[in-house]
Amino acid sequence: MYYLGIDVGGMSIKGALVDKEGVIHYRANIKTEAEKTSEEILQDIKDLCLSLVSEGGIKINALRGIGIGIPGSIDAEEGVIVYSNNINFENVKIVEYLKKTFDCPIKIGNDANVAALGEMKYGSGKGSKNLILVTLGTGVGTGIIVESKILLGKYGAGGEGGHMTLVYNGLPCTCGKKGCWERYASATALIRITEEYSNKYPDSEVAKIIKKEGKISGKTAFIAARNGDKTGAKIVSKYVKYVAEGLISLVNIFRPDCILIGGGVSNEGSYLMKKIERRVSRYSYGGSRNYKVPVKKAELQNDAGMLGAAALCIDN
Amino acid sequence: MYYLGIDVGGMSIKGALVDKEGVIHYRANIKTEAEKTSEEILQDIKDLCLSLVSEGGIKINALRGIGIGIPGSIDAEEGVIVYSNNINFENVKIVEYLKKTFDCPIKIGNDANVAALGEMKYGSGKGSKNLILVTLGTGVGTGIIVESKILLGKYGAGGEGGHMTLVYNGLPCTCGKKGCWERYASATALIRITEEYSNKYPDSEVAKIIKKEGKISGKTAFIAARNGDKTGAKIVSKYVKYVAEGLISLVNIFRPDCILIGGGVSNEGSYLMKKIERRVSRYSYGGSRNYKVPVKKAELQNDAGMLGAAALCIDN
Repeated sequence: MYYLGIDVGGMSIKGALVDKEGVIHYRANIKTEAEKTSEEILQDIKDLCLSLVSEGGIKINALRGIGIGIPGSIDAEEGVIVYSNNINFENVKIVEYLKKTFDCPIKIGNDANVAALGEMKYGSGKGSKNLILVTLGTGVGTGIIVESKILLGKYGAGGEGGHMTLVYNGLPCTCGKKGCWERYASATALIRITEEYSNKYPDSEVAKIIKKEGKISGKTAFIAARNGDKTGAKIVSKYVKYVAEGLISLVNIFRPDCILIGGGVSNEGSYLMKKIERRVSRYSYGGSRNYKVPVKKAELQNDAGMLGAAALCIDN
Repeated sequence: MYYLGIDVGGMSIKGALVDKEGVIHYRANIKTEAEKTSEEILQDIKDLCLSLVSEGGIKINALRGIGIGIPGSIDAEEGVIVYSNNINFENVKIVEYLKKTFDCPIKIGNDANVAALGEMKYGSGKGSKNLILVTLGTGVGTGIIVESKILLGKYGAGGEGGHMTLVYNGLPCTCGKKGCWERYASATALIRITEEYSNKYPDSEVAKIIKKEGKISGKTAFIAARNGDKTGAKIVSKYVKYVAEGLISLVNIFRPDCILIGGGVSNEGSYLMKKIERRVSRYSYGGSRNYKVPVKKAELQNDAGMLGAAALCIDN
């Protein structure tokens, strides 16, 4: 029994042929051509699925399901992409379209949610029924699993933890509100904070690295901090506080089995995770009287989307 | 078939004899004597249950379940009150104790959670599977229902939405963190804001009402605002923004079918609900593209706890 897991992203569409245990037997990806119409992109996805089957060396009737993760508002029940702001998708009946070619269950989900499911089934969340995957990237994405199921909310509009208010009347967010967590805890925010401090402390190692490399990245402050630079340490500390503060809110609401951190910033590994975990544990409601939520690096990273998408169809 | 619903509060312990449809056939309550030992309070609860059965005129074998709502950290699975800060309860095996007298299912839950269940089954939340009951009182309590079940979190430590951060580095909270939502949206906070404004605007109607009545309450600003007082309107507007801002975070995370507001402040009725709903709708993620979450007054108010407690045993 085989499954396809498709991860539709703004840059590429990744696909994998997966078995029930989450082992990837074959993988392929294509470029996302954002200028294409939704019909053309649907055809690209269909072609990718067909090639995964043929190149993966299985017969099409060995296929037990196709799962697809897509950024944006997804109506999983109806199989419709309600809206996706990176790709030309608005009210696209993707499941109905693929059903014409494939005679197996086809399920869709929001990419962040689906990645959380992947981590729960095959990654750092294995064994947990309740977890939150927080992806620190351009924004802050949250995939929330309650009792082994994705928390969807009405018409799939839930799970937007990045848009909790962290700073009342704070920085304006693209969502129209002010002070959203993602304005402070995303990789974008980390770069902004790094820039502010490097301007303020032009003799710091942070400033020197930026001058030398000609650019600022989410790694800059961490490199400097690990080298003993005070400014780097200050930036990391400020950023950790912002990340942890939003996590504490989520812990107080959900008290999940664990929190997983994904996205480029999570490559800072246990150096970052331990700092975050310490703060979360200290300031969560009830302190040491309550369950201490472990904060771990998401393991599957770029494969989480494909594996989670496939998982939409496994055991369903 | 009858059920008992018991609502243990800091001031009184209320009990009701309830049928499957949530109709209360008999009710009684006793004073909570906080100076008593946990054993004595357990005995009071047992005696209340026995008297509800005998005074309610049913035979003890017609009893199909006893549900109890208790403030604090509740381990529902083990039937243990882990900790309650208003009453002398710490690691109290209440279910085991009552099992000696009653031969029916006995279930316990946190009072805010249980009230949310009551509102879902018999109150303003009827017909919803996903809702949040927010109680604006001394603090801000949240009872969260996902797919018809109370969101408990690990060892029952979830559901503390009042302790989301709303104002980063804001007012210190009793929980040890700063800027919790309940420091801005509770009735206590409303009274504090009213006091600040009345001191600043001593000629306002708000200030006059306070002087006349010799005290400030959660109603003061609303009375003045309804009478056209500008200061009263400013206080209400400020308070509505705080309440709404936390609700927006919850909407972005859960996108529930509806939000119910309970506690004394909710008696301001639709005057308050409409103001809150408008703001929540405007600033929730996706604006008008996404499902607009209705904000309604909780209907059952003081009965929600008893009915929800009984509901723990109904259909289980």
